[in-house]
Amino acid sequence: MLTAEEVYQRLTKVKALAVFGSDAISSSAYATEAAIVILIASGSAAIGVSFYIAIAIAILLSMVAFSYRQTVHTYPQGGGTYSVSRENLGQLPGLIAAAALMIDYILTVAVSIVAGAMAITSALSVSGLNPRFDAMGNALPVSPGLTVVISLIFIGILTVVNLRGIRESGTIFSLPTYLFIFGMVAMIGIGLVKSFTGTLHPATPPPILSATEPLTLWLVLRAFSAGSVAMSGTEAISNGVPSFKPPESKNAATTLTVMATLLGVFFLGISYLARQMALVPGNETIISQIAVSVFGKNIFYYTFQIATMGILIIAGNTAFADFPRLSSVLARDGYMPHQFTYRGDRLAFTTGIVALGAIAAALVLLFKGNVNNLIHLYAIGVFLAFSMSSTGMTVHWWRTRGKGWKVRIFINGLAAILTTSTLIIVAVTKFALGGWIIIVMVPCFVAAFLLIHRHYDNVAEQLRISPDQLPQQTIKEFAILPIDDVNAASLRAMAFARTISSEIVVINISIDAERAAKIKAKMERYAPDLKLIVIESPTRAFVQPLMNYVEAVHEQMPNTFVTIILPEFITANWWERYLHNRTAEGLRRAFEKHANVTLVMVPYLLTK
Amino acid sequence: MLTAEEVYQRLTKVKALAVFGSDAISSSAYATEAAIVILIASGSAAIGVSFYIAIAIAILLSMVAFSYRQTVHTYPQGGGTYSVSRENLGQLPGLIAAAALMIDYILTVAVSIVAGAMAITSALSVSGLNPRFDAMGNALPVSPGLTVVISLIFIGILTVVNLRGIRESGTIFSLPTYLFIFGMVAMIGIGLVKSFTGTLHPATPPPILSATEPLTLWLVLRAFSAGSVAMSGTEAISNGVPSFKPPESKNAATTLTVMATLLGVFFLGISYLARQMALVPGNETIISQIAVSVFGKNIFYYTFQIATMGILIIAGNTAFADFPRLSSVLARDGYMPHQFTYRGDRLAFTTGIVALGAIAAALVLLFKGNVNNLIHLYAIGVFLAFSMSSTGMTVHWWRTRGKGWKVRIFINGLAAILTTSTLIIVAVTKFALGGWIIIVMVPCFVAAFLLIHRHYDNVAEQLRISPDQLPQQTIKEFAILPIDDVNAASLRAMAFARTISSEIVVINISIDAERAAKIKAKMERYAPDLKLIVIESPTRAFVQPLMNYVEAVHEQMPNTFVTIILPEFITANWWERYLHNRTAEGLRRAFEKHANVTLVMVPYLLTK
Repeated sequence: MLTAEEVYQRLTKVKALAVFGSDAISSSAYATEAAIVILIASGSAAIGVSFYIAIAIAILLSMVAFSYRQTVHTYPQGGGTYSVSRENLGQLPGLIAAAALMIDYILTVAVSIVAGAMAITSALSVSGLNPRFDAMGNALPVSPGLTVVISLIFIGILTVVNLRGIRESGTIFSLPTYLFIFGMVAMIGIGLVKSFTGTLHPATPPPILSATEPLTLWLVLRAFSAGSVAMSGTEAISNGVPSFKPPESKNAATTLTVMATLLGVFFLGISYLARQMALVPGNETIISQIAVSVFGKNIFYYTFQIATMGILIIAGNTAFADFPRLSSVLARDGYMPHQFTYRGDRLAFTTGIVALGAIAAALVLLFKGNVNNLIHLYAIGVFLAFSMSSTGMTVHWWRTRGKGWKVRIFINGLAAILTTSTLIIVAVTKFALGGWIIIVMVPCFVAAFLLIHRHYDNVAEQLRISPDQLPQQTIKEFAILPIDDVNAASLRAMAFARTISSEIVVINISIDAERAAKIKAKMERYAPDLKLIVIESPTRAFVQPLMNYVEAVHEQMPNTFVTIILPEFITANWWERYLHNRTAEGLRRAFEKHANVTLVMVPYLLTK
Repeated sequence: MLTAEEVYQRLTKVKALAVFGSDAISSSAYATEAAIVILIASGSAAIGVSFYIAIAIAILLSMVAFSYRQTVHTYPQGGGTYSVSRENLGQLPGLIAAAALMIDYILTVAVSIVAGAMAITSALSVSGLNPRFDAMGNALPVSPGLTVVISLIFIGILTVVNLRGIRESGTIFSLPTYLFIFGMVAMIGIGLVKSFTGTLHPATPPPILSATEPLTLWLVLRAFSAGSVAMSGTEAISNGVPSFKPPESKNAATTLTVMATLLGVFFLGISYLARQMALVPGNETIISQIAVSVFGKNIFYYTFQIATMGILIIAGNTAFADFPRLSSVLARDGYMPHQFTYRGDRLAFTTGIVALGAIAAALVLLFKGNVNNLIHLYAIGVFLAFSMSSTGMTVHWWRTRGKGWKVRIFINGLAAILTTSTLIIVAVTKFALGGWIIIVMVPCFVAAFLLIHRHYDNVAEQLRISPDQLPQQTIKEFAILPIDDVNAASLRAMAFARTISSEIVVINISIDAERAAKIKAKMERYAPDLKLIVIESPTRAFVQPLMNYVEAVHEQMPNTFVTIILPEFITANWWERYLHNRTAEGLRRAFEKHANVTLVMVPYLLTK
């Protein structure tokens, strides 16, 4: 597996927008809906408020984008949220940011994939292809269970693909991303024209809903919190600056501006059109409803749905790429197992990728494939990361106070204030709806990071060589060779023992005196130089008598390093391996905690 | 785990009847029913034929019992079917007998446990405690699914109990066995008295069934085959002669006679009473119907049902005890993995016990808890074993021709003819009903035994020391010590390397030149006597460069034994183990098939 820099090797702005921008841009597919779902509690009339919420979020987005443009210029080596927070705010804020990111990756997978699956189920609803009927023969809407099933399949595919390793992602990612972008531009453009000419009508008239609660500030804030997930993924480019073609920072900043502009325009456009038609999300997503109204039920509509699905799956995939990148940085700093620093350690990353996929799948099942409920969890992590990052940048300017620091501190500071305020709004409004899970998980992650870090600190301290003390040059050793018979394999093990040791004891754990006598005779004939000890074991136990013997050796000669030498067969066929006493495993377990015992297997090749 | 002889240490005849006799005696609980189920195809009038079938089987049983009495006297060391067949008939017949026994053990578990579960569901039916009602409020019979569930629970308990190891079985086994024996004696006694006085009436009048097929010889033979499972378990005592108190053979023979008599009387008694009342098996077993008729619905009836369940569970358990006994004999002869000779090898027996439980559970599910269908499979294995054993004994007398051999050969020969004839009848009548499974499985088992045997023969041949050739005294060796840093742990590994080898190369697989330079400096300071080689690995791979190096060593110095020495941490807490590069596993896998490479871990104790 190559490092991230090698995979995404030096991207053009066009490709980089696809690789790093898909997460953010695709958020426009579900954010409007997330806000409307909450507003409809106040009836159809309140849906229009979502447009004003969208304007507020777009302003917030532009501030955050400006803030990240500065990060991109300041940290051309890649200004990840974790690095910026840790460097400027300290260890604990850095780890909180890292925990928020880890949780974000999980939710990016869950939310994006479910939204992608809904692009398909919406298209099925529209096409009428879904063959469900009630007892009276009336067509039923697409089952929500289908969304869950499709989502789980997508997550499974992403997990498998990432386990095998992805290469050349730039080009593959570009197709659905640009298809979605062009589709969105066309849809919003045509939609606006139709709207101004008065020819924009919903394909299926949405239901008129009556209010069940008044349109309070609390409701608006809740809708704002939900809609704010539109901004998820905005930070991605700041992590990936070194992947851009030179001049890296400049290209990254330009791409960031394009990305934020597209996201803002899409989000505002969809919110506007949804408001014009007073659309209500149901079995069909809001953007599917708009697409049918604008394009009609034709090839353009279905292509757009497939592109939506495509960009959302790619957005889900970014989490799988981000996870190893953050892990290796955390591992380098000693907050995650060292194995994660080596991209080559398949086991570590396999574990991580499978865990990511499994937790995302569990969330999809737990929330029954409902994006709007998953979003309650998502927004907290997203804004926690924004808040840490922009606060970190603010502190950075305050500390360095270089040229033009006042303007810079104003931009990052404003972003910090706005995102922190949003974080508080989101945390308060979403707390009871599942947000508490995130608020519990962040400290758990941080505690795990700190525990790991403490262990590595302790190890480093214990391994330090004291300079004024000469290191030990040799070790007092003693070799034990347990044998079952004297044969070619055990003689080879004895030959090895003679080579590595001058003190050798051959041991026969005997269950039968007759057999022991035979072994004794053979030893006298073939290895008269070696000392044979017969230990009787009437209960046929093997490990315990050997442990007792080693203990006795250590009592007589403390600090002696005991090497247990065992002959081992390399069998010709794999299944034959199970036909031999697997005593090595038992011994290894028995002496696992023993600092002065080791086990050496002397292989003997069986050719048939 | 102690050997069987130690567990069942020297049993009195009373206890031995419980330990070895439960399997046979408990067969009377389901054998009558197995025959009647087939006869009812010819209507209620045909049920009476079952009594004449029972007489035929009882005669067969007495012949087989006489035959085994001779085996007991001839093989006081335990005349298992496998040993007798192998010794007198040769390898292949011995292995066929062994395969038949292995299959029998599985079916003993399945059949006995389901019959035990049916003792419970029958009692539930009688008590009316089962709370199932149809839509009209009528009580429904006990669901067959309940039998399956209870059976699976019983199998689960037996598996777990046997995994933990059973001790002191004699006493525990005696209680339900003797309770069942006394209950049976009482039930048959009272039943006969009531029958002769004309006061025996079924508690619920059985349905009058009309014939769906004529009472042909074929139908009678099929019923005979089914009823013949009454004899299963008759051979058990002949395996266990050494467990009896002295004089072993005499005591065993007496116990065998008592056991066969009890079984014969019970089987005939039940068949007679069932015929008198023209009972038909249904949701309630035949013996439950007889017990209700004789005792009434009272404490005697329920106690008898519990005793029936108890003896059947104990009968199922005997298979779990027989399995390790047969396995160790087969392993001693090289037909099963050597691990099975050591009762101490938990892993081998754990695998065996779990497999036994799992296959039995699968059969219960597959046959939906229907004893009468499982019996189609059971009878073939039982009579295959009888046939091999008595034929083996016949050949034994023919070969030895000692005093009184003519009488002896007549007894065993007659048993051989009768059981072989029965085997043919059973195989033919049961073939289509599942018997073919057994006829396919026996050769598969035999093939596996032979394959294992061939491997051990090959190994023995390859390990043989040629007497005129002096064994190798020492080995040319070379030590490699891959290090990641120079610290206390790697210095300790170097000290160990110096002790065991005179040719040592310290290797640093480097991903970074700066770090490599630091390591070089440290090596010059702390271990200037050792040669350091830096191998650059830009892809961060570790195992591959090391494999290449070992290959290069072997090219220059063929036949050199390469010892790879790795420092290893013993962590203070178990989870910390996962925080260290687990390169050892990767290396072990990489060099697994290499006869001239071994891996030595030099442990380093972390105290915190």
